Amino acid sequence: METVISSPGRTVTIGPDEPFCVIGERINPTGRPKFQEKLRAGDLSRIEVDVAEQVAGGAMVLDVNMGVPLTDEAELLSKAVTMVQGLTDLPLVIDSSVVEALDAALRVYQGKPLVNSVTGEQERLDQILPLVKRYGAAVIALPNEEDEIPDDPRKRLEIVRKIIDVAVGQYGIPLEDIVIDPLAMPIGADTTLVNKTLETIWLIREEFGVNMTLGAGNVSFGMPDRDAIGATFLPMAMHCGLTSAIMDARSPVMVEAVKAADLLLGNDAWGANWIAAHRAKRRAAP
Amino acid sequence: METVISSPGRTVTIGPDEPFCVIGERINPTGRPKFQEKLRAGDLSRIEVDVAEQVAGGAMVLDVNMGVPLTDEAELLSKAVTMVQGLTDLPLVIDSSVVEALDAALRVYQGKPLVNSVTGEQERLDQILPLVKRYGAAVIALPNEEDEIPDDPRKRLEIVRKIIDVAVGQYGIPLEDIVIDPLAMPIGADTTLVNKTLETIWLIREEFGVNMTLGAGNVSFGMPDRDAIGATFLPMAMHCGLTSAIMDARSPVMVEAVKAADLLLGNDAWGANWIAAHRAKRRAAP
Repeated sequence: METVISSPGRTVTIGPDEPFCVIGERINPTGRPKFQEKLRAGDLSRIEVDVAEQVAGGAMVLDVNMGVPLTDEAELLSKAVTMVQGLTDLPLVIDSSVVEALDAALRVYQGKPLVNSVTGEQERLDQILPLVKRYGAAVIALPNEEDEIPDDPRKRLEIVRKIIDVAVGQYGIPLEDIVIDPLAMPIGADTTLVNKTLETIWLIREEFGVNMTLGAGNVSFGMPDRDAIGATFLPMAMHCGLTSAIMDARSPVMVEAVKAADLLLGNDAWGANWIAAHRAKRRAAP
Repeated sequence: METVISSPGRTVTIGPDEPFCVIGERINPTGRPKFQEKLRAGDLSRIEVDVAEQVAGGAMVLDVNMGVPLTDEAELLSKAVTMVQGLTDLPLVIDSSVVEALDAALRVYQGKPLVNSVTGEQERLDQILPLVKRYGAAVIALPNEEDEIPDDPRKRLEIVRKIIDVAVGQYGIPLEDIVIDPLAMPIGADTTLVNKTLETIWLIREEFGVNMTLGAGNVSFGMPDRDAIGATFLPMAMHCGLTSAIMDARSPVMVEAVKAADLLLGNDAWGANWIAAHRAKRRAAP
């Protein structure tokens, strides 16, 4: 199944037979106090650097989140989306938990974006899915409810089923426009959690065949050498059926692991991308 | 299932709930013309460096191969095995296609080694399995016959079944002492081959639950940035059920990927090994 998103200048297809879709996570004030301060003062200039670095690193889509406490998030997010679309033609993920902010940003977005995100509660589904439908967007859906993330992969699968039933059956959103986030949990909290995430990915692919994305950084939270953990996790998840990740696109080790996994899983015909990347690296070497 | 091999000073357990078993591939003259020349002249001194580098890199077992044309391989291999056992207490893999060489090396080996390897032809089984049984060794078995490697994972599975039937039923070798090599093929030859290897690993684990090892370097043969490919392949294969690899134990990027996969797959309780390795790396940093 293919999820197609776009900007005026570019179309990106997410799918099991496509190169893995690297979504840059960086335009997000969470954990960035200086950036938060600037945004609160109405200064969005830092976004220019974030866009440039992620494009250089190999991002194919950019996530834009403006979740700064005590601001008008609707205004900030729509401004940021317009700004980013002026800086790059990569399609965007519009990322907010505030319905009004999603609405405002969807109104100004040019093309077909991905909305991040909806969860399994009926109230959230009824708030967000009409927006997704109205603006013809695609949507990331998380199989959790009432702030509880079920450990059991089959329980997550049931919430996915519910979300898909509502989105497709009730709101007429095409199945291919639903991207499931199987929920990557920190390995530091419990060393069985990654196996559960991998099993969830496998089950969702087998059962629904939909595209999937997740926050790759979550897995290594609290551990040292986080990029090496991410670079190891992503290929395993890709083999199970993950087709995209929201990740640090500025990390050469993680982006290279994704490209190697594309090669190994048969999504880089003749190894053309792998070999081209190697040549570019050699040219860039001092 | 657990495969236990040993030297006088050390026991290594290979198994799905154990850290992945890194077998150092370096003591092998294939593709090393200078080393071949020295061995032909009876000079084994280079082995000291190979042992030291692989131990430092994180090898848990060492493969010893002395396949030099126009030499008495039986004499060379038994000498090398005795020498390596004098240098390290890591258990060894005795690696030869020459039955007399295996016999000679098994005779001098102290402890329980792994024999590399037997294939599916009845003649090879009847030559090698009696040695394995006589010396109480474990054995690596490859699911190919008459120099043909079947592409189809289910065909490989059938050869595995035949090998296991003969080894267990006819020669009384315990199932846990049979380690299957699912055959890693070069991605550069055909980009569907890695998917087939991964499927073979999965099927063998599901069907027989035995341990598996493979030559990790084969996958990247002929491609640039080989270590990055190996570091991406191994975690995928580990998630499918691979419990060991014959690999370049001197490669930090590959060994680190294996350790990260141990962590992610729940074989590094509390992340203790991962965190200890990180601290050691920081201490070693200039």
